[in-house]
Amino acid sequence: MAVYTHIGAEDLAAIIADFGVGRLLSAKGIAEGVENSNYLIEATSGRFILTIYEKRVDVADLPYFLALLDHLAAKGCPVPRTMHTASGEQLVTWHSPDGPKAMALIEFLPGLSVSRPSPRIAAAVGQALGALHMAAADFPMARPNSLGPDGWRALAAQCGAALDGIKPGLAGRVAQELDFLDAHWPRHLPKSVIHADLFPDNVLVNGDRVSGIIDFYFACNDVRAYDVAVTHAAWSFDPGGARHDAAVGQALLDGYRASFGINPLEEAAFPVLARGACLRFLLTRAWDWLNTPADALVTRKDPLAFLRRLEFYAGS
Amino acid sequence: MAVYTHIGAEDLAAIIADFGVGRLLSAKGIAEGVENSNYLIEATSGRFILTIYEKRVDVADLPYFLALLDHLAAKGCPVPRTMHTASGEQLVTWHSPDGPKAMALIEFLPGLSVSRPSPRIAAAVGQALGALHMAAADFPMARPNSLGPDGWRALAAQCGAALDGIKPGLAGRVAQELDFLDAHWPRHLPKSVIHADLFPDNVLVNGDRVSGIIDFYFACNDVRAYDVAVTHAAWSFDPGGARHDAAVGQALLDGYRASFGINPLEEAAFPVLARGACLRFLLTRAWDWLNTPADALVTRKDPLAFLRRLEFYAGS
Repeated sequence: MAVYTHIGAEDLAAIIADFGVGRLLSAKGIAEGVENSNYLIEATSGRFILTIYEKRVDVADLPYFLALLDHLAAKGCPVPRTMHTASGEQLVTWHSPDGPKAMALIEFLPGLSVSRPSPRIAAAVGQALGALHMAAADFPMARPNSLGPDGWRALAAQCGAALDGIKPGLAGRVAQELDFLDAHWPRHLPKSVIHADLFPDNVLVNGDRVSGIIDFYFACNDVRAYDVAVTHAAWSFDPGGARHDAAVGQALLDGYRASFGINPLEEAAFPVLARGACLRFLLTRAWDWLNTPADALVTRKDPLAFLRRLEFYAGS
Repeated sequence: MAVYTHIGAEDLAAIIADFGVGRLLSAKGIAEGVENSNYLIEATSGRFILTIYEKRVDVADLPYFLALLDHLAAKGCPVPRTMHTASGEQLVTWHSPDGPKAMALIEFLPGLSVSRPSPRIAAAVGQALGALHMAAADFPMARPNSLGPDGWRALAAQCGAALDGIKPGLAGRVAQELDFLDAHWPRHLPKSVIHADLFPDNVLVNGDRVSGIIDFYFACNDVRAYDVAVTHAAWSFDPGGARHDAAVGQALLDGYRASFGINPLEEAAFPVLARGACLRFLLTRAWDWLNTPADALVTRKDPLAFLRRLEFYAGS
């Protein structure tokens, strides 16, 4: 939640000019995402988000993310289009005092991120996710899931025994879950481009309508129903993970079923997929927790909120 | 540059409703100012900044700041108007998990903050500052300058010998300057409501026109020409304070002279006022420098950038 790279108005104006979106009228650094710096840009031709990619994003992945946005937008999904320079580039380089940085200019989509989703909104989100999977079916590029099952053991090893500092016994619980998931992970299920991070923060709504799906920086190719499981874990609990809202969870799945469908094998594997989803966020949050000073201005997200969800799906 | 208080969309919508500005369409936390949390709000009736006042602002001062905005806006100054609730309140209280917080909803003004000012813009800024002093002449409230000459010695004492850790000899240089300013400070000069922090960050421009003057949270009643000196120190150097741009400084003073005028006593005292302005920012930046971890996400501003300006005005 910070702007890591400061760009003066004169430089912003020059960058915007490259994209041919008119004259710069206003620019505000926005506190969105923890990975990158973002400016909300107003130009004579409309509003845009200028994203400056910081260390944690691999620049080699950016063409996948940006091409995916254009592919989905062209098929009518409510995702922001990317702007292109006169020579067709989606990425430009800005020479900051810290060295060169890649940047992209992306359409601004209005809408709000809900923090207490209703079943009606959950149904709309499920429907939008199904439509996104449908639209992505012929997307020609591929990217492995670096935070998928093959990465979890390494992530747990990086956290190590320090997990017990978050909660006594957590390291052992994680090791046990890794063994369970290794034994039961449904690798045979149909794959797709997936969003992989469809939290309420990444969905914009206008009333009960989904007006935007944003932040595709974890998008990848992986088990399609895993995306549904991530979304279910993200939407159908209170933020602390203590209370499951069955009506919201059900509405989300019904919405997805109506627009894409869930086959019987996916249905059967759902609890395992959801446990994997919970472990993924438990581990990345634990790593951030252990590596962020308690007094940093960045809000640390509670890893245990996903341990509680994990135990819900594990039925324990 | 962070959002310290997170407010969910549902709560934001309820807050906006109190101000009668229509339905909430979009809300983005913006990385503006270091003192407060700010949301850029889009509602059906326009765009606004919602400010949540954090620890460093004294809530008792807020009525002064907010009434001043309305006073200046009513006289045609390009400052944002404040919104009022149906019962006429400019301040509302939000019960955050950290306790009650005061909030205000203020008009959004478009425009850009320049980082490399031209003489034309400096002239427009000088003119706008003169117009602001003129418009403020009959403002009925008063607030002492907590960061004025009476506060500098205490601020220096709080930094103490640690100043020498920023630069060897700095504590001695500061003590010497405090003695000089005590002996020469022109307390007899005309007073006024002053902005007291009119840096390029706090001025919005559209082309060569000043479209907004913002961030009045240091406004107070003090020597009027001190405000001109602060603005001169803020605008007519490179950010590091190494190079003085005489053309920009001259244009700023000419613009101010054209709209308000500088009397001969103010003219004579200008170098002393400017040295005081430099010491004020040197000391507050030094205090922040000494109390901000080097790895914090907040950018620490270099105190020595104002030592260099101070030595310029001291002619040494």
